[in-house]
Amino acid sequence: MKVFKTAGRLLFVITAFFLTLSFSNKTMAQQKNQMVRLAKIRVDPVQLNEYTVALKKQMTTAVRVEPGVLTYYAVADKNDPSHITILEIYADTAAYKLHIETPHFKHYKETVKNMVKSLELVDVTLIDAASKPGM
Amino acid sequence: MKVFKTAGRLLFVITAFFLTLSFSNKTMAQQKNQMVRLAKIRVDPVQLNEYTVALKKQMTTAVRVEPGVLTYYAVADKNDPSHITILEIYADTAAYKLHIETPHFKHYKETVKNMVKSLELVDVTLIDAASKPGM
Repeated sequence: MKVFKTAGRLLFVITAFFLTLSFSNKTMAQQKNQMVRLAKIRVDPVQLNEYTVALKKQMTTAVRVEPGVLTYYAVADKNDPSHITILEIYADTAAYKLHIETPHFKHYKETVKNMVKSLELVDVTLIDAASKPGM
Repeated sequence: MKVFKTAGRLLFVITAFFLTLSFSNKTMAQQKNQMVRLAKIRVDPVQLNEYTVALKKQMTTAVRVEPGVLTYYAVADKNDPSHITILEIYADTAAYKLHIETPHFKHYKETVKNMVKSLELVDVTLIDAASKPGM
């Protein structure tokens, strides 16, 4: 029965490790090569719903299938929801260059080309990030 | 020895659960009552280092000790690092009201009062967020 004791102990250690991971607050300064950007987008208000659908699809697909696409947060101004800001974090510029050549990104760009009235891309540095576990 | 088998199985289930949590991509639309905001801050360039120290301390303390302070991302424009944008997510407006009454927030405001040249607060809605596990 020693095998069960050993397995039990091992599983306890693994569980404790992931419990610690899951319930710890995360703080994160920018990793050395990361590329961080704010995209400021003005969308045709009449096509805002269609734009939002296309944006969500692009974001979730990219994070799911591309190893170098790390984080997206997309927000809309309450006073003018057609004014959208996206915080984007890529592993490095190579990951970004791969990203803009993917079928899902090209599909997004094609879908929204007549919905986007203006696009400003601002390269930024991540000063710090902090969030509750699971956020 | 049945107790070890049972314990082993239980720990296996718990481990599997946290492994799943830890290695899943996260996607998140705004929760019903959350308060999401962009703070756009222009800092006196001469005092930028001191400002950044105070900001980081405020962010990490708030997320660590306040249940309702969920997420902060602070970024600085590459072309003008004195231009800072902070994405802030609170559980609800009550959590935000509690936040601005905390000693650490009041200390931050007092510390930076002569460093901040302008502050614009923009209420926003979270359209969607997606990120790799651990980000």
